[in-house]
Amino acid sequence: MMKFEYHQLKNFCQNIFLKIGCPPENAHVASEVLISADVRGVDSHGVARLSGYVRLWEAERINARPNIKAVYETPCTAVVDGDQGLGLVVAPYAMDIAIEKAKYAGTGWVSVRNSNHFGIAGYYAMQALQHDMVGMAMTNASPLVAPTFSTDRMLGTNPIAVAIPADKQPPFVADFATTTAANGKLEILQRKEMKAPLGWIQDKAGTPSQNPHELKNGGALLPLGSDREHGSHKGYCLGSIVDIFSAVFSGANYGPWVPPFVSFLAPPADPVGVGIGHFLGAMRIDAFRPKEEFKQHMDRWITRFREATPAQGYEKVLIPGDPEREITAQRLKEGIPLLPAVVADLQDLARKFEVDF
Amino acid sequence: MMKFEYHQLKNFCQNIFLKIGCPPENAHVASEVLISADVRGVDSHGVARLSGYVRLWEAERINARPNIKAVYETPCTAVVDGDQGLGLVVAPYAMDIAIEKAKYAGTGWVSVRNSNHFGIAGYYAMQALQHDMVGMAMTNASPLVAPTFSTDRMLGTNPIAVAIPADKQPPFVADFATTTAANGKLEILQRKEMKAPLGWIQDKAGTPSQNPHELKNGGALLPLGSDREHGSHKGYCLGSIVDIFSAVFSGANYGPWVPPFVSFLAPPADPVGVGIGHFLGAMRIDAFRPKEEFKQHMDRWITRFREATPAQGYEKVLIPGDPEREITAQRLKEGIPLLPAVVADLQDLARKFEVDF
Repeated sequence: MMKFEYHQLKNFCQNIFLKIGCPPENAHVASEVLISADVRGVDSHGVARLSGYVRLWEAERINARPNIKAVYETPCTAVVDGDQGLGLVVAPYAMDIAIEKAKYAGTGWVSVRNSNHFGIAGYYAMQALQHDMVGMAMTNASPLVAPTFSTDRMLGTNPIAVAIPADKQPPFVADFATTTAANGKLEILQRKEMKAPLGWIQDKAGTPSQNPHELKNGGALLPLGSDREHGSHKGYCLGSIVDIFSAVFSGANYGPWVPPFVSFLAPPADPVGVGIGHFLGAMRIDAFRPKEEFKQHMDRWITRFREATPAQGYEKVLIPGDPEREITAQRLKEGIPLLPAVVADLQDLARKFEVDF
Repeated sequence: MMKFEYHQLKNFCQNIFLKIGCPPENAHVASEVLISADVRGVDSHGVARLSGYVRLWEAERINARPNIKAVYETPCTAVVDGDQGLGLVVAPYAMDIAIEKAKYAGTGWVSVRNSNHFGIAGYYAMQALQHDMVGMAMTNASPLVAPTFSTDRMLGTNPIAVAIPADKQPPFVADFATTTAANGKLEILQRKEMKAPLGWIQDKAGTPSQNPHELKNGGALLPLGSDREHGSHKGYCLGSIVDIFSAVFSGANYGPWVPPFVSFLAPPADPVGVGIGHFLGAMRIDAFRPKEEFKQHMDRWITRFREATPAQGYEKVLIPGDPEREITAQRLKEGIPLLPAVVADLQDLARKFEVDF
């Protein structure tokens, strides 16, 4: 795979966002969020998606110059209307509001409507860290997941991210889809022509399947837990909570009404809200406890969990955020590897918009 | 199995709590919470645990007359010290504070230290419903769960409960351990001398096991997801978040330092905090959106998910809270079935404390 330097990719994305009409400030933020996914190893949510966002803009489903604003507020809550903007621009704006509210009220909670897919959830949760706050971010997404006992795709992979500051240790950063496996992992198996493990997907009849192309045949991803015996009803609960906090609080579309990310599929004709929804939260750690005390205990928590005995065949026990930190260090040094198909996609964009790549 | 009427069991528990010295108001609340678990079908957290609480009191690890109070407050947050009281008394008190704060500030968030096991998480989340609020409740617990890649028991089954009000539909109530299977399910298999499904437990070397007695041999419960390939790192993240919100925010014990529920095991000699921790939250729905609008959309959410096509072999798709509602209706009508061992346990308590049963 070819490798690309961080700033090269970031500048390229920024230039594309400028070309579709984003104001400079928005183009900067959107490209930073997008590349942060590649840097952290979440390849499915990074530059590989740039052309997808462009196609949504071409289909007039993304507004490049949105008037994003809080439409409803209390001292510690708000509803933000994204004016059909890029989720990559709407979500950092909404998270800033959550952080501002937390500064004055102790905690801040923002539900967002009329947005689009926001990429990597962890980025927004981590915005809180520099303010000595715990950050949370979640979003609903195109329906690909069947509830326990069902064959219908009713929920997105609806991720949850939580970032918690420590002192000398790096922060705790959890960021995960509420499914057994994210869609990006299926795409990797598709490319490699490999079978999926049982428990990731089911076919259109609801039978467990190992065919990574099953979603094209009416199949579905499974909630975290895989099946009822292994707790899939808990993954279904988690995905549902994300959906409700993101969309029923805000007035966005929920469940099967969430508009698809791919521009070749039309949004449902009978929407129950506007666009996609997100939910963002910030809690000042000193709203609970003196912050040095909190951080020292987080160091102790992290250190103790790192000292847990590894099972046979494993070198060490990881803390949420460790794998992404390792990849970040490596990719900032050695470059970001991109698949040939992704490189070709970016080259197409470069030609189309007359931008250097 | 013998069946018992709700009020009979509730009065019995209340009398036992009075006998160990609880003030009448606390005995009432504690017995109501305890029996609510039996009524909802969460048998492992109901009267079956009464003798366990009594033994903790006998071991002087539960204070029957605690001075529970908020020790740190902002307009929307608090830390509550449970003064070593019953979790069944401390948690409803703390949830009331979260609700009061939400009334004035929009949301309320309370982290609790110096408490004990609180039983059924769903009860506290549901306290918020009558106030047109979303309720959340979580708690850490005795370490029984190994992080992904580890053999050490570092986390409890650390449940999460979320209750969301609807209009004409019943509320959405999710309440689940962040493990693949709760410990109570293993106890059922132990009694029936049956094997556990693969993915619930591992042995002391970290190898998958089907022996439901494995925990007695140094084995561990597995986080939701069962193994790395099926997302156990996500269950590990969830359990960790519950642990940190419940204990690092409040100053309770966390991770392997959480004191065991069983009185025959001593608490760790080097505590990092006091007692067990909980985290409780309340969000006023009209802090986001006019409440009638919110509730009507919740009705639509619930109705739409109920209409999802069932997979072959299943009659219908359930909404979080449905199974417990069905059991509640049945048990309030037909009585609460108790295993002979539990009945014998209650009879022992009756004799010991000279209380009618």
